[in-house]
Amino acid sequence: MATSPEIEHPVKAFGYAASDTSGTLSPFNFSRRATGDNDVQFKVIFCGVCHSDLHMVKNEWGMTQYPVVPGHEFVGVVTEIGEKVQKFKIGDKVGVGCLIGSCRQCDNCANDLEIYCPEQLQTYSTTYYDGTTTYGGYSDIMVANENYVVRWPENLPMEAAPLLCAGITTYSPLRYYGLDKNGMHVGVAGLGGLGHMAVKFAKAFGAKVTVISTSISKQDEAIEGLGADAFLVSKDQEQMQAAASTMDGIIDTISANHPFAPLFTLLKTNGKLVMVGGPEKPQELPIWPLLIGRKMVAGSAIGGIKETQEMVDFAAQNNITPDVEIIPVDYINTAMERLLKSDVKYRFVIDIANTLKA
Amino acid sequence: MATSPEIEHPVKAFGYAASDTSGTLSPFNFSRRATGDNDVQFKVIFCGVCHSDLHMVKNEWGMTQYPVVPGHEFVGVVTEIGEKVQKFKIGDKVGVGCLIGSCRQCDNCANDLEIYCPEQLQTYSTTYYDGTTTYGGYSDIMVANENYVVRWPENLPMEAAPLLCAGITTYSPLRYYGLDKNGMHVGVAGLGGLGHMAVKFAKAFGAKVTVISTSISKQDEAIEGLGADAFLVSKDQEQMQAAASTMDGIIDTISANHPFAPLFTLLKTNGKLVMVGGPEKPQELPIWPLLIGRKMVAGSAIGGIKETQEMVDFAAQNNITPDVEIIPVDYINTAMERLLKSDVKYRFVIDIANTLKA
Repeated sequence: MATSPEIEHPVKAFGYAASDTSGTLSPFNFSRRATGDNDVQFKVIFCGVCHSDLHMVKNEWGMTQYPVVPGHEFVGVVTEIGEKVQKFKIGDKVGVGCLIGSCRQCDNCANDLEIYCPEQLQTYSTTYYDGTTTYGGYSDIMVANENYVVRWPENLPMEAAPLLCAGITTYSPLRYYGLDKNGMHVGVAGLGGLGHMAVKFAKAFGAKVTVISTSISKQDEAIEGLGADAFLVSKDQEQMQAAASTMDGIIDTISANHPFAPLFTLLKTNGKLVMVGGPEKPQELPIWPLLIGRKMVAGSAIGGIKETQEMVDFAAQNNITPDVEIIPVDYINTAMERLLKSDVKYRFVIDIANTLKA
Repeated sequence: MATSPEIEHPVKAFGYAASDTSGTLSPFNFSRRATGDNDVQFKVIFCGVCHSDLHMVKNEWGMTQYPVVPGHEFVGVVTEIGEKVQKFKIGDKVGVGCLIGSCRQCDNCANDLEIYCPEQLQTYSTTYYDGTTTYGGYSDIMVANENYVVRWPENLPMEAAPLLCAGITTYSPLRYYGLDKNGMHVGVAGLGGLGHMAVKFAKAFGAKVTVISTSISKQDEAIEGLGADAFLVSKDQEQMQAAASTMDGIIDTISANHPFAPLFTLLKTNGKLVMVGGPEKPQELPIWPLLIGRKMVAGSAIGGIKETQEMVDFAAQNNITPDVEIIPVDYINTAMERLLKSDVKYRFVIDIANTLKA
């Protein structure tokens, strides 16, 4: 028999949830499971607001389980650990990203690519192994299996929580597709939550970075604000032609449909166009530009847990943090409206510790 | 002042040319340049008939210079060498493929990727450095700069000339995209001139090879004739689903537009769909299947000269030859009609030495 979210588990929890496709978030009493042998319980301090939260609260991807407590980039302090937990102790700073479970038996899991495991469990709005719905980081407390918990470096600000999604989503393809070499020329198409992290990581790897955007209005923030080396307005054919065949790769963060051909032109022989944004409708793909220059269009989704740990460690060592606007939790519905208009530089982060009160 | 093809150069030559978009080929007297210091002159023995010859004689790509003597996979015996030629001597067996010139200064040329040099000169129907039109291998004699001439291994039959286009076009991507490892599972989509070579090379590299075709009618030839390990009918959803997530890569030789999604489904995480055929209209590319599994669609065009030499040497060592139907040159128009209907297993090769008479 179904039971209510408030009493199905023994540990009281409080957060913000949407209960229908309006997507409006409001205070929500629910519960978390008791800390299992391999679990880490932690008090949430900061939680980032990802664009996918917006899709999920409105069920735009058709997979939402209501009520939905969003949040898949959050950081906190350990309050309790299970008997068999080895990596963490009470008081440690930790984070959870997009993933809280996977089969741990397939090739993907064996290769630290849990994110590509067909049985992966997402951090919120998924049915967990115990049959209950998972709830995300817009909440005061979290319990997760330690295998999906990342150690947060001491010198990394906790409000840099968006590293756990926007950070790893751009770090991982730069690494995997070999765009992390000193002296390379990396394009970043689109300058939002993902794009601004791509700029920072590519710069840290020693690349020359060019931001490609539809609008000249972002030029100053790209170059002066984020340290990009150059800026291209994608509709300016002269500019684009002058930059033809100069890039080793492009991290494409644009989630709306957009023409590929101009981006291919920017690539050198063997150049890589890597999609991290996911337009929902198919893109038009001209094939000849792929052949003439041995180019590719590739995809990448977030990253595995081991690489996420490597990424936050790299960020700490290189002082890489997302640009965030910290908000109180009761601002979340306004924040969602602004997010829809891309009116944020570049990520909202909810100050859970100071503003979420039961 | 323009001069005629017959007298513009000192060396008499004879071949078959099309003079208009009907594409009909007929006997043609023209001339070849005197053997320059770095040139190799050779008597043509066999010349393959590539599907692109069919496009070119009809000017279907809008770049044909008439009269056009096609042929970009041909093998012969050296009859004269220039003073500075170092790699060849009279009597050597040699071959010429798709390329007879490039800038030799760009990064592509420096990396033995002349085929991606923006100033590459194609073997026929291009304007050469001296201002004259280039003529291909449907002819009795050829003169080419030694840098674009391949040494033909002694034990490799000369009628295996299609290696110089169909062979290298499939060998190169198997190598570059890392699909040349023992134990890998490689799909080959489409079973024509390119596809049948992809099967042979992938098998020689130790891969498990599955042919993917729209028609069950090719199953026997794929498995019994070419040694493929398995066969999938792309429209049989049960078969395709059973093979989901099993392939490391697919060499896609299909030149007509076709759905990508079923092919992505066959790929493992990190799987590579490599286009070597070039549909003229854009393909529909769904992006999510690229993200979920870090997959890619990539392109590859022919291959550089150094790799072409490596490929013919590999073919000789491993007894890899194309399946050919040898034809007399006066059969060429019928052969073109049959080619249009894919009525050949798998490549026509013109017996130039015995049938082309001035």
